[in-house]
Amino acid sequence: MSDKYTAYELQSFDYKSIAKTERTIPKPQGHQVLIRVKAVSLNFRELLVARGHYSKAIKTPLVPCSDGAGEIVAVGENTKKFKVGDRVMPNFMPDWHGGPPTLDGARTALGAFVDGMLQQYVVMDEASLVYIPEHLSYQEAATLPCAAVTAWNALFEKGDLQPGQTVLVQGTGGVSIFALQFAKMAGATVIATSSSDDKLARLKDMGADHLINYKTTEKWDAEVLKVTNGQGVDLVIEVGGSGTLEKSTNAVKFGGIICVIGVLSGAGGGVSPINLIMRSIDMKGIFVGSRTMFEAMNRAITNHKMRPVIDKTFEADQIIAALQHLESGAHFGKIVVNL
Amino acid sequence: MSDKYTAYELQSFDYKSIAKTERTIPKPQGHQVLIRVKAVSLNFRELLVARGHYSKAIKTPLVPCSDGAGEIVAVGENTKKFKVGDRVMPNFMPDWHGGPPTLDGARTALGAFVDGMLQQYVVMDEASLVYIPEHLSYQEAATLPCAAVTAWNALFEKGDLQPGQTVLVQGTGGVSIFALQFAKMAGATVIATSSSDDKLARLKDMGADHLINYKTTEKWDAEVLKVTNGQGVDLVIEVGGSGTLEKSTNAVKFGGIICVIGVLSGAGGGVSPINLIMRSIDMKGIFVGSRTMFEAMNRAITNHKMRPVIDKTFEADQIIAALQHLESGAHFGKIVVNL
Amino acid sequence: MSDKYTAYELQSFDYKSIAKTERTIPKPQGHQVLIRVKAVSLNFRELLVARGHYSKAIKTPLVPCSDGAGEIVAVGENTKKFKVGDRVMPNFMPDWHGGPPTLDGARTALGAFVDGMLQQYVVMDEASLVYIPEHLSYQEAATLPCAAVTAWNALFEKGDLQPGQTVLVQGTGGVSIFALQFAKMAGATVIATSSSDDKLARLKDMGADHLINYKTTEKWDAEVLKVTNGQGVDLVIEVGGSGTLEKSTNAVKFGGIICVIGVLSGAGGGVSPINLIMRSIDMKGIFVGSRTMFEAMNRAITNHKMRPVIDKTFEADQIIAALQHLESGAHFGKIVVNL
Amino acid sequence: MSDKYTAYELQSFDYKSIAKTERTIPKPQGHQVLIRVKAVSLNFRELLVARGHYSKAIKTPLVPCSDGAGEIVAVGENTKKFKVGDRVMPNFMPDWHGGPPTLDGARTALGAFVDGMLQQYVVMDEASLVYIPEHLSYQEAATLPCAAVTAWNALFEKGDLQPGQTVLVQGTGGVSIFALQFAKMAGATVIATSSSDDKLARLKDMGADHLINYKTTEKWDAEVLKVTNGQGVDLVIEVGGSGTLEKSTNAVKFGGIICVIGVLSGAGGGVSPINLIMRSIDMKGIFVGSRTMFEAMNRAITNHKMRPVIDKTFEADQIIAALQHLESGAHFGKIVVNL
Repeated sequence: MSDKYTAYELQSFDYKSIAKTERTIPKPQGHQVLIRVKAVSLNFRELLVARGHYSKAIKTPLVPCSDGAGEIVAVGENTKKFKVGDRVMPNFMPDWHGGPPTLDGARTALGAFVDGMLQQYVVMDEASLVYIPEHLSYQEAATLPCAAVTAWNALFEKGDLQPGQTVLVQGTGGVSIFALQFAKMAGATVIATSSSDDKLARLKDMGADHLINYKTTEKWDAEVLKVTNGQGVDLVIEVGGSGTLEKSTNAVKFGGIICVIGVLSGAGGGVSPINLIMRSIDMKGIFVGSRTMFEAMNRAITNHKMRPVIDKTFEADQIIAALQHLESGAHFGKIVVNL
Repeated sequence: MSDKYTAYELQSFDYKSIAKTERTIPKPQGHQVLIRVKAVSLNFRELLVARGHYSKAIKTPLVPCSDGAGEIVAVGENTKKFKVGDRVMPNFMPDWHGGPPTLDGARTALGAFVDGMLQQYVVMDEASLVYIPEHLSYQEAATLPCAAVTAWNALFEKGDLQPGQTVLVQGTGGVSIFALQFAKMAGATVIATSSSDDKLARLKDMGADHLINYKTTEKWDAEVLKVTNGQGVDLVIEVGGSGTLEKSTNAVKFGGIICVIGVLSGAGGGVSPINLIMRSIDMKGIFVGSRTMFEAMNRAITNHKMRPVIDKTFEADQIIAALQHLESGAHFGKIVVNL
Repeated sequence: MSDKYTAYELQSFDYKSIAKTERTIPKPQGHQVLIRVKAVSLNFRELLVARGHYSKAIKTPLVPCSDGAGEIVAVGENTKKFKVGDRVMPNFMPDWHGGPPTLDGARTALGAFVDGMLQQYVVMDEASLVYIPEHLSYQEAATLPCAAVTAWNALFEKGDLQPGQTVLVQGTGGVSIFALQFAKMAGATVIATSSSDDKLARLKDMGADHLINYKTTEKWDAEVLKVTNGQGVDLVIEVGGSGTLEKSTNAVKFGGIICVIGVLSGAGGGVSPINLIMRSIDMKGIFVGSRTMFEAMNRAITNHKMRPVIDKTFEADQIIAALQHLESGAHFGKIVVNL
Repeated sequence: MSDKYTAYELQSFDYKSIAKTERTIPKPQGHQVLIRVKAVSLNFRELLVARGHYSKAIKTPLVPCSDGAGEIVAVGENTKKFKVGDRVMPNFMPDWHGGPPTLDGARTALGAFVDGMLQQYVVMDEASLVYIPEHLSYQEAATLPCAAVTAWNALFEKGDLQPGQTVLVQGTGGVSIFALQFAKMAGATVIATSSSDDKLARLKDMGADHLINYKTTEKWDAEVLKVTNGQGVDLVIEVGGSGTLEKSTNAVKFGGIICVIGVLSGAGGGVSPINLIMRSIDMKGIFVGSRTMFEAMNRAITNHKMRPVIDKTFEADQIIAALQHLESGAHFGKIVVNL
């Protein structure tokens, strides 16, 4: 067996610069394990990283992608929990195991500050890993580390969702669809927005209780109020940024929570603090989640036999086409790449 | 005894329109009590209300002022807790007794949506009242309902302050000084900013650990980072609005909390969500607090024999001069008006 | 129309002493409303009260029953929220509106420290009331105030239940069945125990995931561990008291929560603190809940069109037979009495 | 330099069996560091371990003691945070870094399930360590890992202490004195009990607000109620076990918290659940704390220049005398052993 493997590197801040390279398979030591990565998934963040918009601290060349799933093929001499043959996913931030978020944890975010998962092999500390739920394929598992854990954190850690409450989800990206699935699992009512009636129909099939086409209903905040008897929703899973934030502060209830997750429509602008004060709103920044949250989420996914929604699966050599598809915004759910 | 008393009314949206009027003393019924108001205090909010900037729902004529303290002089037939002679303060929102904030409670905010405390007599439900701590005068007590409860809510309810943590307070308005006093009482480290070295010296005397003149140190956010070994503060008590909010997101720690309380420097602008997301920051809107918080605060004030800082006391007929003094921003602590 | 109505009074500490009496219909004043009670439900607590075991502070004669549902037939001059014709339930403790539990609230518990609902008319402050969910009858509504709110508080306030977690419920009394229904609504896994295979079969039909006959499987704690891969459950809804508490501390996970609600099998004994310490367990006493919790629960019941399980409905004159049926322990769900 | 060092081993379940042995100095690898332990402190737990009463899972020979402080003298090739010369303490459970308590973390508790600190050298993962506050000696630092972190967790994590609240501490063991110091730091009122007037006088000097000699005032629960105007304390730091627990449930307020930490007066008995239910009390088991809590506590200790109270310091060869002194109960504060 060769000791070489294929890794994909972003060479400069342009996703078309991603190129195939050859690396030497590392050996796991101490608490480390060696993982044969089988699939990765793409997040909007991958585009921000590739464009150089994610953080000034990022350097190229860089192996992109935070999300991957694979099989353990070798273990270090001190591993206790995992063994060869186990199917695993690394946490988005390998060093954030539990408790409150920390800068030290954030600095280990995969595919940004350190090399990511778009490569056939990685070495990880076993404390950074979680098991793949049994009923999921590697492709399905690869969709979880960023988008699903983000949705979980927003709903159940920072959002304190209870049955009977109402959640607003925006669009059909990964986080929004996971949020819909988890919120329904938790007995909440879900209002979903999209610019496409076709996509809204699919959201309805997945359990969304109220649908709003934000293209044809420009004042979707007023519509949310109407649907909630003038009260507003308990929780907004906000992915839009400058284009939606102001409306979200109108659509959330007095004393409600807006979990801020993404800035798909732009990072400029922002929300006036007056509305937050006078309506006692909490706006909480969500930066994915800890391994402990990932484990709690997997238990729920396992017990409910929940399946992620995969939009399309590409082969590794089609990585640029895969990112183009992501950029188009035409997807519904997650885009996966086999390795 | 005459059954008439003096009330002050805002006649139009200009604080110079405040005029003396005569009203008939009401009779308390059921759980109500009649209070002879002895003193009120002024908040920046009073200027916003008088200018018509606080809420479009406000109508004139209106008796202004949320904050007052007085003596019970008569009780309804079903009162259980309070009796004639008790010294009391109404909660800022008489109908917010405990639990999470509600719109119904907010609609009862005194001196805005209903008549306030700038009058010699008011009738209140006893469930809206708290006792005045024994060691405080009516003038001192009158400073508490809005500013002190706001600071308490920010630090201990939404802020979860623990000993050893660091808090940033801005300027020398009522909320900021109360926040300084409470934070020191709770064993926290306090960084205080002001545009005046004289005022900073007074803040130091009151226990502030680090002082920053934000006029001479324009990049005060960088200075906060320096003082906190690059970590940032655990909690910001944000009163500035558009002029300070962006810097506050730089000055708070990764995973920290910004309690948004005021917009002294303007309500425009706002903060980009990107910083909230990437640094996992919670920005929480604070709209004063419940009667339960007020009671918890009073217990702390009582046990610590804490005294509010009164900047200056006016007589009721000087109400316009008192508001002018508030508008000038020259005060340090609270402005009180005797009734 | 006569101004007299029928009330049932406990004359001495023996439930057979309950007798029919005639009272004069009161007039609502201020924020009060007059309710024509249509149905009440019975809780194990009613037996404790009748036996004089509930609290030494209770005096006879007393109108028993905390739980009732009815229609508003008259309102006081200051009511804002409710009107004649509204279908309502009083909160178990009329003075506990929201926030943390208080002694003052507890002293207003209906059918114990003040007269309860086993009478055709009651006057209540409107702040003590909640609307009956539209899809429920008066009989169904009457089951909610004590048992359902207790289960809700245990699961979602003190229990912080998340989807994917596992809950243990004991037996087929009102609280246990509501806990099963709410836990399933929230996406949790439920382990249910009973001494009867027939009842277990019914629990299974209602969604229970794992069933244990504690009569045939005496070491049910070991069985719970087996079912949970040796981890134990996240949350125990403990209704058994001295007969079950020790086993519950074995059956709950390290760091788990036991919500202590009832003492059906006896109030003696207790649990050694050693197990709580070494396994980091929280044992939380649950005393029903606030009006705010009741409202949150009703929203969930409404959205899910959930129906309470009624074991049997009696007429008011059969009240002693109804309590005998409760005492027998043969019931599955709630016992209701029409008024 | 020799590669041998001295370790003390419990040979059988009798503390007099502790004997000096020689071991080989290990080499740190990966993220590990080698610590030269300078001092340890003793906890009541050490007696339980030595008597075989702590857990059936414990095997001899065992190096006892959870609490130690020392200097890093060598580091593994992958260490990032610590370097040679750093002064450090390991967390009581080296694998509990943050988040909720876990069984996996508990299984790494030092001096119980794995070898402890009563030896001149230990190898630790750097993720298990915290810095010693600069103003503390090794002897002072050695008092912190078990007793101080336990008190911190009880007061600020599980106890949610706010300024103005009242805390009950029992006796003059390590946890109780740390709880007094931290509670005063946080602006709380402290009621302290002891069987000795001399010790009470010392507690008063340290800031205790109310003192109760539980020998001369047998009904100390009634005395606590008197001191708190009949309300009871917000929080009990319960160390007594069967001899005090029932009284603690009387002395805590309606809706209050009892943090259960120790069983000095016996592990039998227990508390009846009835009192917990009817008074809505939470009884929370505290098993020390996470590294994250330890760090938060150290920041408070540093900012307040707080010093632990050392009762007496022994040399390592006097370990049996040191444990006898602990057993006598005559100490006030912590017993330290130099290594």
